[in-house]
Formats: sequence, C-alpha cells, structure tokens
Amino acid sequence: MPANRAFVLNSRPSRETPAGPHNFRYVESDIGEPGDGQVLVRHHYLSLDPYMRGRMNDAKSYAQPQPLGEVMVGGTVGEVVASRNPRFAVGDHVVGSGGWQLYSLSDGRGLRKIEGGTPMQAWLGPVGMPGVTAWYGVNKIIAPQAGETVVVSAATGAVGSVVGQLAKLAGAKAVGIAGGAAKCEFAVKELGYDICVDHSDADFGDRLKAALPDGINGIFENVGGKPFEQAMLWLNPFARIALCGLVASGYDGTPTPLPDVRVLLNTRSRMEGFIVSDHMALWPQALGELAGHVAAGRIRWRETVAQGLEAAPQAFFAMLKGGNFGKQLVKLVE
Amino acid sequence: MPANRAFVLNSRPSRETPAGPHNFRYVESDIGEPGDGQVLVRHHYLSLDPYMRGRMNDAKSYAQPQPLGEVMVGGTVGEVVASRNPRFAVGDHVVGSGGWQLYSLSDGRGLRKIEGGTPMQAWLGPVGMPGVTAWYGVNKIIAPQAGETVVVSAATGAVGSVVGQLAKLAGAKAVGIAGGAAKCEFAVKELGYDICVDHSDADFGDRLKAALPDGINGIFENVGGKPFEQAMLWLNPFARIALCGLVASGYDGTPTPLPDVRVLLNTRSRMEGFIVSDHMALWPQALGELAGHVAAGRIRWRETVAQGLEAAPQAFFAMLKGGNFGKQLVKLVE
Repeated sequence: MPANRAFVLNSRPSRETPAGPHNFRYVESDIGEPGDGQVLVRHHYLSLDPYMRGRMNDAKSYAQPQPLGEVMVGGTVGEVVASRNPRFAVGDHVVGSGGWQLYSLSDGRGLRKIEGGTPMQAWLGPVGMPGVTAWYGVNKIIAPQAGETVVVSAATGAVGSVVGQLAKLAGAKAVGIAGGAAKCEFAVKELGYDICVDHSDADFGDRLKAALPDGINGIFENVGGKPFEQAMLWLNPFARIALCGLVASGYDGTPTPLPDVRVLLNTRSRMEGFIVSDHMALWPQALGELAGHVAAGRIRWRETVAQGLEAAPQAFFAMLKGGNFGKQLVKLVE
Repeated sequence: MPANRAFVLNSRPSRETPAGPHNFRYVESDIGEPGDGQVLVRHHYLSLDPYMRGRMNDAKSYAQPQPLGEVMVGGTVGEVVASRNPRFAVGDHVVGSGGWQLYSLSDGRGLRKIEGGTPMQAWLGPVGMPGVTAWYGVNKIIAPQAGETVVVSAATGAVGSVVGQLAKLAGAKAVGIAGGAAKCEFAVKELGYDICVDHSDADFGDRLKAALPDGINGIFENVGGKPFEQAMLWLNPFARIALCGLVASGYDGTPTPLPDVRVLLNTRSRMEGFIVSDHMALWPQALGELAGHVAAGRIRWRETVAQGLEAAPQAFFAMLKGGNFGKQLVKLVE
C-alpha cells in the first residue's frame, strides 16, 4: 500500500492576503488498494495550468471552485500500478486528472490510455488540454486565412506555442508577444513565429505597432493587460479575438478593460471567450490532428520541469508571473 | 425641370463645436432632366438614421466620411417622375439612397421598385435597412432559442422594434429598454415585449435586474452607455451580444467601456459588431421574410414624421437624443 502525498487547498486568497503557497497544505495519506472496477495510477508528471488559479477563488467563474480540504485539481500522466478495471492493465500509461498528488485511485472515468512514440508528458501539453485549447481557438474562433495576421500573447507558453504553429500551418503570419528576449528568440527560431515582441520592453507599444504593418485579423489572448490593450489598437475589419486566458488580470481584482466597445463596431469584429472543456465532443478530432503534427515534427514545444511534488506550489505561482518557459510540469518520480 | 432643394454637409463637428444643425447648409439647384439610362425620382420620404452622425466625422469608422459640400446621404422612397432607363417607368414607386433632397437623378443602380399593399415608407423601416439590420443581428448573431431572454435597447426604435418582435417570433422572452413611460408602454402593448425598463428611471439598474430573473442570453445593443453597462452584468453562459449602434456614446468622445473583458471569458460569451451593408447577399432573404411578417401583421411599428425638408436637421439631432418615437422620417411632399 503506497504512501501517498498530496497538496490540498487549505484557504482561499483574499484582498488582504493574496494568493500564495500558504493557501496549500501538504498532506500524507495511505492511498489504498483498488476495489472492484478501480485502478491505481502512479503519476509521473503533474501539469500546472493558469486555470487552477481561478479555481482557488470562491467567486463566480466558469468552473466550480476547488473545494477546501480536497486534493488540488490537475492533469497528470503516469502508469497503472494496480488495476481491478478490465480497461487498464498494470504498466499502461494513462493521462487523466489525478490532481496534485503522487497517486490517484479512480474508477477509470476520465482516464485515457496513451501510446508510445511521443514523450508521456506531451499528453499534458501539445496533445493534451493546452493543445486542444489552442486548436479550438484557432480553428473554431479565429479561423485564420492564408496571409492574415494572428497575434498570440504568452506566445511560448503551453497554449500559445501551439497557437503560433497552427496559425503558421494555416498560412497566416504569426506575431508573438512574450516576456523577455530569450522567449522571443525561441518563439521565432524554434516555433516559427514571423516576429515576436517583448512586452517587458519600455517601447513595447511602438514595437508591436511596427510588427503589424498589415494590422491584425486574429488575436489569441492568453494574458490580458497591456499586451491585449495594445493589440486591440490595430484590428482590421472582421477581426476575431479568442479570449482564452487573462493571467495578467482579474484574479486579484486588476481588470482588463476594453476602453470603448466601439472598436468592435467600427471594425465589425468578434470577441469570444471560450473554455475548452465546453467542447469535449471535439477533443478526439483535435487530439488526432495534434498528434499527427507532433509526430511529424510540425509542432514543437518547450517545458519547464519542477522536481518533486513539494516544488509544485512555488512553481505554480512562478508560472502565473511568467517565470516558466513553455509548458510547466512537475516531475513526480525520480 | 423641377427646382431641387437639398442639405449638404457644410462643416464637421469638433470638440469645440459639437455637432448640430449648423453643420448642414441648405442649397437650391436645378436637378436636370434624365440623360440616357437615367431616372429622376421625386422623394416622398427621407429616412433619418443614427449612422448618419458617424458619417459627419472625418474619423476612422466603418464607412467613408460624408464629403463636405455634397448632399447628405440618406435612404429615400418616392416615385419616378421621368425615366430614360428601361427598368423604370413614370409612376413606379422606388426605394433607394437619394439623400437629403427633394429629387434625385441616378442611373438606377441601388434603386429598387416596391410593390403596393404596405405603405411606401415601410421600405425605409421594417422592410428596409432598419428591418434587415434587426433581422441580421437576431438571426445571424443572437440566434435566440425558445425560452431564452433577449435584451433590446432603443426597444421602440426603427431597428429595436423589429428586434423585439423577431425575438418573440423565435419563442424568446423579449426585454426592452427605452427612454420614458410612453415608449415602454408601447413596447409592451403594441410590440409584444414581455417587459420594458425605462432607462431614465433613477433606479434603472435595479429595475433591469428585476426584469431578468433568468439572466440574459442575447443583447441587441443600439445605444451603449448605461443600458449596455447594466445589461452586461447579467449574462448567462454562452450569451451573444450583437453590437449594432452606440448612439449614447462615441461620436463626441464619450466611450462605452467594458470594464473587464473577463466577463466574456467567465460566461464564454461572444460580442460582435456588425454593419448590415456588409451582408448585401442576405438582403433578399431578409426582406422577403420581413415583408411576410409585415403583411401578416406580425411586425408592427411606429413612426415620427417631420414635415418638409427644412425640418430634417432639427429632427435628426432630436432623434439622436431619443426625441423620436419609432422610425424617424421626413415627409417631403405635401
């Protein structure tokens, strides 16, 4: 009976006490053995994603809040170490939502077997939730045409890196926005962005304008705040803005305003918020296409890997501040 | 050779000198006789519409600015009084864009013959540009389902009155917003709105909230400003916001902000600006459906008619302040 370790949500952020590692509590437990129909998974990687910050709040959002005292929600990949479920055998590699812990015991719902070839943790990235998120926003909201210009904030992140490459595969010009010279260099040299603008530059606004001689046909917004504000100045007619995330904004009361909605009227543009979990019926198609791109080397990505479950809270808040480079993972096995 | 009279745009509004009748100049001219292929129309009615205010500016907008010194643009209905164009005979009733003048001479492009039954001026209202505008926003953006709630600002206006009735025909609940008790009473009693909230009431926000026990699935926005701001507080998931006009805002530098775009993300809602002239291919279908509704009495409307061309400038600015009740027309014949 393996000794499990986990982080539970211990308290919620407040105006007086902003979110931080202190909101999590480290717990140890016996995970138990699988009962009839159950499967026990040992997690190799935990995925850290911005949506988790929203779940810490009790506020009205698109998802139920994370309950206090329960293991934090999170995507995981790992291997089956015990099974009394006919769909899974010991040694199977599986992706699921095992949470911030070393092991998870479940009835197998939401657990998917993954096949070899691609590194296991890719199923938490380009062929996982972040990849499908990119796929949905690009294909179902922006629908870039050849020659159009698509702007992507957090351009090297787990979602953004896939957005840029899908936009290029559609024949569009991809303009990235990222924080720091290293990320911008990676965006252009490795991910194929036509240009990348560093939002930490003092003259970011001027540089972004210079990067957009033909205006903007699509925005894939992961960040909000200044990058969003500046991009919205250069919409072409009939632009499409996919609102995917606003990590620069909102959780702690800093809004991302649109100063005048008239910009959407004057340009006849469309802005749409979306959450990939609303579109589960499209996941098989999306994952199939993404797996094909990854296998063929058409989609590349980068990871930042924290070592050991104990590192998860610090890594999570560092990621929210842009401290990660690519997909943020926590490695849970030696 | 009839003596024509017209208003031309004489100057543009500025921050120092806001828009007013002084921006127009009254001119007299000889209209001339039709040359080969031309048709001369005597206008019976001129349509006054909010979009004209945008044309007075030189600013970037969805349309070309109205050129200084030229006859103000505007929709007209009238009768053919002379024709050297085989498509039109003397006595035909036609709808077109004849401008703020008594007569127009043209090659017949953009001129459409209208048939009897419905009063001529309806082709400037529910079976004209305002009606098609309503049809597009309702059918192509909001797409209301039975039982959903649709909010309509300027609920009794040329566009809004058709929006409310189309929403009801789709089985939705229609909640109007209008200025004053008389318009609200008309909205409910004559146009079939389930409820109408007066935005001039001191407790407008509370009353709107009370009118929306099931939240909002669609907004057809004609006004901006406070009605928009208050409605955006009550979006249900997957709401659709059709941005059609912002008469309360913008022309004179008063923006209609969205305080935090996160509302679109949290509710996975879509906001889209549109201009009906972008969608000319849909006009025949829209006009056909609208004409059927009007003929069957399923769409009703109200008009405010100013008498004589000279009254047009005052009537136009009164309309922009909500002084009209229903479709604003100018009658150009005795």
